[in-house]
Amino acid sequence: MSPAGRRPGKIDTRTMILDAARDCFAESGYDATTMRAIAGRAGVDPALVHHYFGTKSELFVAAVDFPFSPSTVLPPLLEDSDAGARIVAMFLSLWDDEATRRRMLAVVRSAMQYEAAAVMLRAFLRREVVGTFVSTLPSGDAELRATLVGSQLIGMAIARYVIALPPLSTASTAELVAAYGPTIQRYLTGKVGIV
Amino acid sequence: MSPAGRRPGKIDTRTMILDAARDCFAESGYDATTMRAIAGRAGVDPALVHHYFGTKSELFVAAVDFPFSPSTVLPPLLEDSDAGARIVAMFLSLWDDEATRRRMLAVVRSAMQYEAAAVMLRAFLRREVVGTFVSTLPSGDAELRATLVGSQLIGMAIARYVIALPPLSTASTAELVAAYGPTIQRYLTGKVGIV
Repeated sequence: MSPAGRRPGKIDTRTMILDAARDCFAESGYDATTMRAIAGRAGVDPALVHHYFGTKSELFVAAVDFPFSPSTVLPPLLEDSDAGARIVAMFLSLWDDEATRRRMLAVVRSAMQYEAAAVMLRAFLRREVVGTFVSTLPSGDAELRATLVGSQLIGMAIARYVIALPPLSTASTAELVAAYGPTIQRYLTGKVGIV
Repeated sequence: MSPAGRRPGKIDTRTMILDAARDCFAESGYDATTMRAIAGRAGVDPALVHHYFGTKSELFVAAVDFPFSPSTVLPPLLEDSDAGARIVAMFLSLWDDEATRRRMLAVVRSAMQYEAAAVMLRAFLRREVVGTFVSTLPSGDAELRATLVGSQLIGMAIARYVIALPPLSTASTAELVAAYGPTIQRYLTGKVGIV
């Protein structure tokens, strides 16, 4: 029962590793954090960290508790000629699932409350979303485009599911694709800069 | 020291009235809530509620703790031929003020955490923002346009100030007006529906 004591059981080991990972990623950032450092912080063997979570990248996704992997979902969408509409439809299908929505809201809520959680989410989105845009979009301003797209999607989700003002909260997917698709498309391929 | 005891002092009376107002508005909605009911809940004379907060509408704005009154700020902007750009610039000037930003974030954070706060914010935005759009914009789908505009502005604010991913977090007002102005303009006057 001592505070430094290791608790038994599979679930507690997982939780301990995740907590240690969150601390390490928030303190040192993604690149400077090693699996060995996380294992040390959790007081477990590094092999156990690999056993539970695979690669550092996979552990990072688990630590943020993001319900899907943008770097897996995004590339085929970004290459589609109708990318704006497809991204809106995909994002809505994720948020319309209650369990996914609860996890997404928890991620955003934590980031709004704790700077450490905001640091984690920032690093996650930089790797998973901005990084994917940079390696998929041909334009030189892919970072700006990625953050513009993200800003409309997160705003749509909060307006629809949290503030829940009609008619946005009651609109169909098709209506939202018609309203938001052209916005996302312009952020992807249109003129977004000053010049 | 009894829980029902009235504490002395101006600040506590104000706080008591605000707490009572939040309870009443969240339970009964704006229209069904009377100043008398709020006074009764707070255990003070109705005249005192008027003395501290003026009208019911003013008390409502104070209870939400929104740092500005959209129904005052919006009409001249909505009537401008360059409304999209002007709304983005105005919204950014508000968020760039640290005290205003802190209050705006507190409002959004509360709405994400407590359903009662979400109910209040929803009622506030319906009156202050959607109501203003309906009485200012000529189109029949002003409610949808209002919520679309709101969704991009709140998303821009969260992406820029909470998630704070560059280059969105470091962009100038002029850059953001160039990126977001056409989006807001389309939500105001462009084609946003399915047909």
